Amino acid sequence: MTFIPTGKHLIAGDWVEGDGSFRSQPAHGPAYDFTRGTPALVDRACRVAEEAFWTYGYSTREARALFLEAIADEIEARGADITEIGTQETGLPAARLEGERGRTTGQLRLFASHIRDGAYLDRRHDGALPQRTPTRPDIRLIQRPIGPVAVFGASNFPLAFSAAGGDTASALAAGCPVVVKGHPAHPGAGEIVAQAIDAAIKRCGMPAGVFSLVQDGGREVGRAVVEHPLIRAVGFTGSLGGGRALFDLCARRPEPIPFFGELGSVNPMFLLPEAVAARGTAIAQGWASSLTMGAGQFCTNPGIAVVLKDQADGIAEAARAALAEVAPQVMLTDGIARAFRAGRDRIAAGSAVREVLTSMCDQRRATPTLFRVSATDWLGNHALAEEVFGPLGILVEADSPEQMVEVARSLEGQLTATLHHDAGDLDLARRLMPVLERKAGRVLANGYPTGVEVCDAMVHGGPYPASTNFGATSVGTMAIRRFLRPVSYQNLPEALLPEDLR
Amino acid sequence: MTFIPTGKHLIAGDWVEGDGSFRSQPAHGPAYDFTRGTPALVDRACRVAEEAFWTYGYSTREARALFLEAIADEIEARGADITEIGTQETGLPAARLEGERGRTTGQLRLFASHIRDGAYLDRRHDGALPQRTPTRPDIRLIQRPIGPVAVFGASNFPLAFSAAGGDTASALAAGCPVVVKGHPAHPGAGEIVAQAIDAAIKRCGMPAGVFSLVQDGGREVGRAVVEHPLIRAVGFTGSLGGGRALFDLCARRPEPIPFFGELGSVNPMFLLPEAVAARGTAIAQGWASSLTMGAGQFCTNPGIAVVLKDQADGIAEAARAALAEVAPQVMLTDGIARAFRAGRDRIAAGSAVREVLTSMCDQRRATPTLFRVSATDWLGNHALAEEVFGPLGILVEADSPEQMVEVARSLEGQLTATLHHDAGDLDLARRLMPVLERKAGRVLANGYPTGVEVCDAMVHGGPYPASTNFGATSVGTMAIRRFLRPVSYQNLPEALLPEDLR
Repeated sequence: MTFIPTGKHLIAGDWVEGDGSFRSQPAHGPAYDFTRGTPALVDRACRVAEEAFWTYGYSTREARALFLEAIADEIEARGADITEIGTQETGLPAARLEGERGRTTGQLRLFASHIRDGAYLDRRHDGALPQRTPTRPDIRLIQRPIGPVAVFGASNFPLAFSAAGGDTASALAAGCPVVVKGHPAHPGAGEIVAQAIDAAIKRCGMPAGVFSLVQDGGREVGRAVVEHPLIRAVGFTGSLGGGRALFDLCARRPEPIPFFGELGSVNPMFLLPEAVAARGTAIAQGWASSLTMGAGQFCTNPGIAVVLKDQADGIAEAARAALAEVAPQVMLTDGIARAFRAGRDRIAAGSAVREVLTSMCDQRRATPTLFRVSATDWLGNHALAEEVFGPLGILVEADSPEQMVEVARSLEGQLTATLHHDAGDLDLARRLMPVLERKAGRVLANGYPTGVEVCDAMVHGGPYPASTNFGATSVGTMAIRRFLRPVSYQNLPEALLPEDLR
Repeated sequence: MTFIPTGKHLIAGDWVEGDGSFRSQPAHGPAYDFTRGTPALVDRACRVAEEAFWTYGYSTREARALFLEAIADEIEARGADITEIGTQETGLPAARLEGERGRTTGQLRLFASHIRDGAYLDRRHDGALPQRTPTRPDIRLIQRPIGPVAVFGASNFPLAFSAAGGDTASALAAGCPVVVKGHPAHPGAGEIVAQAIDAAIKRCGMPAGVFSLVQDGGREVGRAVVEHPLIRAVGFTGSLGGGRALFDLCARRPEPIPFFGELGSVNPMFLLPEAVAARGTAIAQGWASSLTMGAGQFCTNPGIAVVLKDQADGIAEAARAALAEVAPQVMLTDGIARAFRAGRDRIAAGSAVREVLTSMCDQRRATPTLFRVSATDWLGNHALAEEVFGPLGILVEADSPEQMVEVARSLEGQLTATLHHDAGDLDLARRLMPVLERKAGRVLANGYPTGVEVCDAMVHGGPYPASTNFGATSVGTMAIRRFLRPVSYQNLPEALLPEDLR
């Protein structure tokens, strides 16, 4: 291994020390000391970001596209080191880190081509009508970047939703400088990715303040980030509790700003009777596989499957058998394993909840858990509808198709909702669809919600608490909209228009 | 006059009584009693709106377009009565009410053609890639209506931003039922417009719950509207204090919802030296005219003009002379006149503020006021940058072009910012532009911000406190975006896709 973290923060091209230190808690391999972020570092990072905006916000789309591609190149150049420190810190397997690296560089390159295309600028022009009474002036519209954006690294995506992840890529593509608050679960991965971005900044001659990384420093650092008057929007992926607290801080600012948080989802699947009759075992096996991918630590983990009562035994047994085969998996942090045990015990304590498969969960490793509960009991206990982050599934047994619809209606906002259906299920599917599309950002048929394609048509968002802004997505090209605002230009001469409007 | 208000509320096609009553306070003509809105009426209206959504949210675009056009027709059929009660209640002249009626019906018809066109649906399709590893599913995206929307009537636009105004038109166009909280300044105009909508609902066979009007009932009614769990978004135009309080309530809900508020703006104009030298008198006269239109009660009223110190005398004198000619104008309500007097006295009390023209303002009529102040003093006193609703202008005298830029940088968010420039001013204009486009939703050259064109390229919004969502506009076709959310459909069969995606 060639990469040894310095434990420093990147502020406008300078690697600086923070105040005090924390030690990384790798799943395996050496632990390192990192200096702690501070509100003073956050302030410096925001100020240089604001300064950088006056040039970066007016850079050409081609210059930004080349910059995004350079970041992707620099990440690839550090690929082996990133995988090594990333696997050590998170316990995720190397193949996952490599796949996630590909997703991360793919996102950066996708946004490069997206801004080259220019359709995202949403240019509009209402020409002057000098003969009309009253006369109409010439009015043009374009989407402009909003200014410095804060991004919180996510525990479960050390690459794709952290220093150079989807939030950073879409903000930089829009023309917004970024201040990242690193996640303490993978500070080394954060640092090496920041080194890659730093190298790309220098290679492309971008203003140094366009990217800063402040490592974790506890609650007051997170608070300093969202309350900083120069920050115009926040991108966040994390827990409901932590995310809501930051959302509330954003809303209470003297000048409120949007908080794009992705907080929690149980991603229900509805297993319709004909589909279950035709291929129930395969559906249950697919569920088990989706449920345990990455130790169940995905936002789109399908934590709940709803099935008719008289078909539940078969699904439960097939899922149990498949889940029982899954070896213990390392969880991202000791804290996440602890929260998983607490969540599992909370579900198990629910009245009339039956444990089909009991998990092992020690300090940091877990095997899957499977529960069964009647839809009536599930409907009566809101705690059973709350996300448990980890490999945990609940089979909800409905008395009737009507009760399946009732379960759907009772759901809170979700990132995804899935239908498993066959031709004979169409009537029931048609009754569920209008309900599910109001509840979820993405509706799937005959598939599993894990695996979020990065493309134009993706929505990774949804009604609260899936996300704090149901109009936005954090995955896919539409994610850039979060960091743009429309501006009208009335009767302005060519020389004063933004370059993209000329 | 044929229209005598019943004083009732419209809930799902029924005209019902509220609790207690209030008396309208017309500027002239008879006063009427109106029953007060209550939280219970709000609850009924929201429930029927939610029920209506299950059909209205799935209506065809053509059906909704015909409905919007029917509302416009029904408003026109009541044109004379609307003008009569509207002029009585608001004190605005008949020509203004007629113009505003045209704007209102024009907006309804514009949204009809906008949804017929369908580009607003933002349809996207990433086709399946079965050969890729991993395979890519078929993913389609479309914008869907969000559900019931609440709209607060605005004091200063009894038609264009009230019962059937821009917020209602864009929400109905999107497919969202609307609950309007009427403004107490024009309850009669609200009632007759609600009658027009009611007639259109019946004519078009729309679900009755698609529109309800609850008349004012004090703070608890406003609170009940924004806190109702079935409401998905709020449209509001009004004061900073009242709007911020409602925004805060929305953000604190268990499930926060977007609050699209348009709160306050001083709409600065920058008078650059060459333009002033060439046509300072005309600019000042235009300012006076824009400043006193509708007794200065426009969101886009240009309350501040910034000029170089050595050119200030000429502008001040020309503006004073023009403003002195303006006869007393009736203000919208006694309360607004009172607030105008208080705002005027607050500005007058600012240190080093000089009164150029003193206004008369009795119980409800006012003449314009003009102040002068040095940019240094203006920069040192934040109160001078706060909106005073009414015919009041402040001429801010900058020592230098640099100080003009400093004034621009110090501004809070604005609906508009205006440059008056000539060819020789281009360098200074180029320095101001990047600052102004960050501060305002619309930047104008050589014009006046009053008069907001309803078109595709309009942005009537801006950074806080101009609006609470800098990404949104409340005027123009883009206003529909506020009431839509993107949904992805993955591998869904044609039969289960929304009609507009098939």
